[in-house]
Amino acid sequence: MSAAFLEGLSGVDDDVAAALAEPLIDHHVHGCFTGELDRAGFEESLNEATADPIPAFMTQFDSQLGFAVRRWCAPQLDLPPAVDADEYWHRRSTMTPELLARAMLPAAGVSTWLVDSGFWTDRLCPPRQLAHWAGGVAGEVLRLESLAETLLAEGISGPSWAQEFRARLAAAGPAVVAAKTVAAYRCGLDIDWSRPSDAAVGRAAAPLPGSPTVRVDDPTIIAFGVHAAADAGLPVQIHVGLGDRDLDLRTADPLLLVPLLHARRTVPIVLLHCYPYHRAAGYLAQAFGHVYLDVGLAINHLGVRSVELVAESLELAPFAKQLYSSDACGPPELHLLGAVLWRRGMARTLGRWVREGDWSATDAARVARMIGADNARRVYRLPADGPSWAA
Amino acid sequence: MSAAFLEGLSGVDDDVAAALAEPLIDHHVHGCFTGELDRAGFEESLNEATADPIPAFMTQFDSQLGFAVRRWCAPQLDLPPAVDADEYWHRRSTMTPELLARAMLPAAGVSTWLVDSGFWTDRLCPPRQLAHWAGGVAGEVLRLESLAETLLAEGISGPSWAQEFRARLAAAGPAVVAAKTVAAYRCGLDIDWSRPSDAAVGRAAAPLPGSPTVRVDDPTIIAFGVHAAADAGLPVQIHVGLGDRDLDLRTADPLLLVPLLHARRTVPIVLLHCYPYHRAAGYLAQAFGHVYLDVGLAINHLGVRSVELVAESLELAPFAKQLYSSDACGPPELHLLGAVLWRRGMARTLGRWVREGDWSATDAARVARMIGADNARRVYRLPADGPSWAA
Amino acid sequence: MSAAFLEGLSGVDDDVAAALAEPLIDHHVHGCFTGELDRAGFEESLNEATADPIPAFMTQFDSQLGFAVRRWCAPQLDLPPAVDADEYWHRRSTMTPELLARAMLPAAGVSTWLVDSGFWTDRLCPPRQLAHWAGGVAGEVLRLESLAETLLAEGISGPSWAQEFRARLAAAGPAVVAAKTVAAYRCGLDIDWSRPSDAAVGRAAAPLPGSPTVRVDDPTIIAFGVHAAADAGLPVQIHVGLGDRDLDLRTADPLLLVPLLHARRTVPIVLLHCYPYHRAAGYLAQAFGHVYLDVGLAINHLGVRSVELVAESLELAPFAKQLYSSDACGPPELHLLGAVLWRRGMARTLGRWVREGDWSATDAARVARMIGADNARRVYRLPADGPSWAA
Repeated sequence: MSAAFLEGLSGVDDDVAAALAEPLIDHHVHGCFTGELDRAGFEESLNEATADPIPAFMTQFDSQLGFAVRRWCAPQLDLPPAVDADEYWHRRSTMTPELLARAMLPAAGVSTWLVDSGFWTDRLCPPRQLAHWAGGVAGEVLRLESLAETLLAEGISGPSWAQEFRARLAAAGPAVVAAKTVAAYRCGLDIDWSRPSDAAVGRAAAPLPGSPTVRVDDPTIIAFGVHAAADAGLPVQIHVGLGDRDLDLRTADPLLLVPLLHARRTVPIVLLHCYPYHRAAGYLAQAFGHVYLDVGLAINHLGVRSVELVAESLELAPFAKQLYSSDACGPPELHLLGAVLWRRGMARTLGRWVREGDWSATDAARVARMIGADNARRVYRLPADGPSWAA
Repeated sequence: MSAAFLEGLSGVDDDVAAALAEPLIDHHVHGCFTGELDRAGFEESLNEATADPIPAFMTQFDSQLGFAVRRWCAPQLDLPPAVDADEYWHRRSTMTPELLARAMLPAAGVSTWLVDSGFWTDRLCPPRQLAHWAGGVAGEVLRLESLAETLLAEGISGPSWAQEFRARLAAAGPAVVAAKTVAAYRCGLDIDWSRPSDAAVGRAAAPLPGSPTVRVDDPTIIAFGVHAAADAGLPVQIHVGLGDRDLDLRTADPLLLVPLLHARRTVPIVLLHCYPYHRAAGYLAQAFGHVYLDVGLAINHLGVRSVELVAESLELAPFAKQLYSSDACGPPELHLLGAVLWRRGMARTLGRWVREGDWSATDAARVARMIGADNARRVYRLPADGPSWAA
Repeated sequence: MSAAFLEGLSGVDDDVAAALAEPLIDHHVHGCFTGELDRAGFEESLNEATADPIPAFMTQFDSQLGFAVRRWCAPQLDLPPAVDADEYWHRRSTMTPELLARAMLPAAGVSTWLVDSGFWTDRLCPPRQLAHWAGGVAGEVLRLESLAETLLAEGISGPSWAQEFRARLAAAGPAVVAAKTVAAYRCGLDIDWSRPSDAAVGRAAAPLPGSPTVRVDDPTIIAFGVHAAADAGLPVQIHVGLGDRDLDLRTADPLLLVPLLHARRTVPIVLLHCYPYHRAAGYLAQAFGHVYLDVGLAINHLGVRSVELVAESLELAPFAKQLYSSDACGPPELHLLGAVLWRRGMARTLGRWVREGDWSATDAARVARMIGADNARRVYRLPADGPSWAA
């Protein structure tokens, strides 16, 4: 890991810088695109929230994320920092997906990628491929709604549905280290989080009209999935806060999860991303011994402003309850950026606290290691010998 | 434009400073007071939120806005920065409204004022007068609730009401560049935003008991106004977030507008002011190609803290989707302050990003120009030869 | 008051530093523990939110509050700043509660403590004891729910209940300078805040099954208590925002209090703590002439991040409407820390504003005195000769 993330900063303690340069565990990420993109497709992948084409009067490069791509990813393509968007795009468009991935991923300094393997499976590389390109190892995060959709697409429905769902969870290999729900996208978080009976699940999973594509948004099926994953002993990741426009941000508020947090206390529950509700999420991570959070995704979208987001995430949540993720999805720039921006945000924040005597350098370095990797290793029970379980 | 806004700051790149010194378009503002004020009246005009008199135990000068007035407006009256409140008031009270306006407005460095011409028409100068004093040009923002009240006051009601409302919109002159709704003040944003039928509008606009004053707060009439303005091709400004105490801040949350944003996509929709919901507003500006925002009004009320507000506004919203406004209303100090504080907030924020290598100076200067004027020129289709359309 | 709070900071104006070093009024605080603690008990007292034991995989020392204890309290025990948690605990565990209190409390530089005397009366020292150890004076804040519980425990119920409640309030001694409600913990703030009739209160205060402990959570009784306190002329403190896990943070939003703020305007209403709703609370303090706020409790829990919280609290609320509190409860470290962190946050914030020319040093020093003591003296009508009324 080069110390590019320190460029332009002064007064960051050496021990803190060294701790931040150590390999990260990206505990929630997606694969890279495997196919070519046109410029419109690339720009759309820089805007998590929109379902629209980028308006003709603008370029999505003119955003914090776009500026951060030009600043931090251009040097990986042998271009100067903050190179023109057109020039960046031109260089990028000459490269294959693999070349791009190989240019970006190793520079992220990530040793372990925990990959949501149930999204855009036709467009994104599988976990093993991501790890191979990056020079690390990968584990898998099982997306509960995708498993539910698989069962429905296979024609399973009715009374045996719940049983079969549990069987699939039980049969997941050792590389599956967590489950994830996108309830926020499908039905919102303001649902009945009590455990549904198998009979109720069976009724919700009624035979479908013969559509080849299924989109699960039934709260009974979704709540069931979370309980089944927790029963199977899997840590449960929950998407919270910002996301695409399908999501109603008002019902992506983590405070809506309180009934679930009370009901399910046997496995870690990890609140993903959280912006702009990261302060409320920090409160929950303090209030519940089994609740964790990250501020991934938003780190990338905030670009240079992620410094303040990272600092705001270091408020109520105990340091053992925080994790690093990029939530990168698609362009491998995002896998790199998440790591650069998190490290830079931590360096600026911790650097100042040490410099002004509020924190010791030893503590700052230790917290950097906890959030960067140690906490994830404990939450997901990752063996030191990653490859034995890796996807 | 003098560079007063840079006083006391160091390390702001010259190109960035120069870009920030260029003339602004204040895309949402009101007129100046045309009559004399006593001190109580002046102090009340420094408190947007209250309907109470300022309590006897305090002065509203003891607020961020009051401190900012003393800091940045005193020099326009040949007083030292941060002069005593009593001395400031004394000097100010010797001046006519016109002298005050001429002391403050030109110093704002604003070339174009888009003026809400439907509020306090008996107390505030009209757009043309504001522009004349300031040495710029003015366009008009048509306040939809005021138009509705005009129709009702004229005795129009029932079935023909909707038709007449549309006719008035169609007859608006070329100086009318946008419409505005204060739904947040009248009925809150948590209403049915679907298009009401003319019949429903006619029922809502039933004959009134013969009161000379009318306050429209009917959600059917208000939703109709927004649809009619959009049908007429006018950009729609929507008051969001902080405002006076009549407003229930809980129902001034921009996330309540999502149904409207989905339904009306043919004209720009501009979320005004937004504090403390500016991060959620930024999310909407990213999610919807036709949605814009500003953080006016709050900039003035936060005084020196507007630096952080301006920085927070530079998060999710693409840079082509952000605008400058003061929302100044009444004392011409507010028209000046909005411009000084926005420039100062941008200078401190962009200055640091450039200094630490996160942004290039070229990009920073370009974004300053976009938000300061270029975006507004595009959104409101302002001709280069302003005077031909100006009020 | 030593200037420990300035350590590591540079460029803080001398007058501002001197103003911040003056004695504070801690307008909302609890007593110190009178008994010994084991380490688990101590760590739990560093986590306001949780009802769980601290998980085995972590220590609550690894939090902003824990780091702040080690940084700022260790020197009071003749240990170096940021000493190891084990070493800190070891030294602390050799000391009696009184020795600890005498090590911490005087260093807080607080002249007057206004103590909630109705919570954990078996575990916390009474106001007079706190003041004695600290070398200051104490007033009392009457906890309305505790008074209600006392009446119920005495077997009072039914029609005479309201009358008796009023009689007890009227009989409160001169040391009782305010009342406080913990409605947020009991029923949430989203209740009917209109004044209940005595008959309705009597029905709510029906004879209880013979439980020795009573927990009042009936909204009629709670709303009645607030009205009765206001009728008695007592300022009313209202817990808002973060607190323990019993509290549903969604119903601890101060915007839910608007109906009460409209209805009761004859006494000061003080919003306590407020995080993460402190910006909305600032809006209310601007909107209502009788509304105040503090950001206590959160200051301690945010540790070094309290700098930003303090700065954020200096936005909409006029400076005459802000107060200092620690909300310390239990370990006397918390009574000290609140004062150190508030002073440090103010020093960093005001220091910068003065340095960059946004505020004058005179203004900054004056605002420090207003928030630190002067406002509280006015709100609670504290006589200059404290001891005559002190508990």
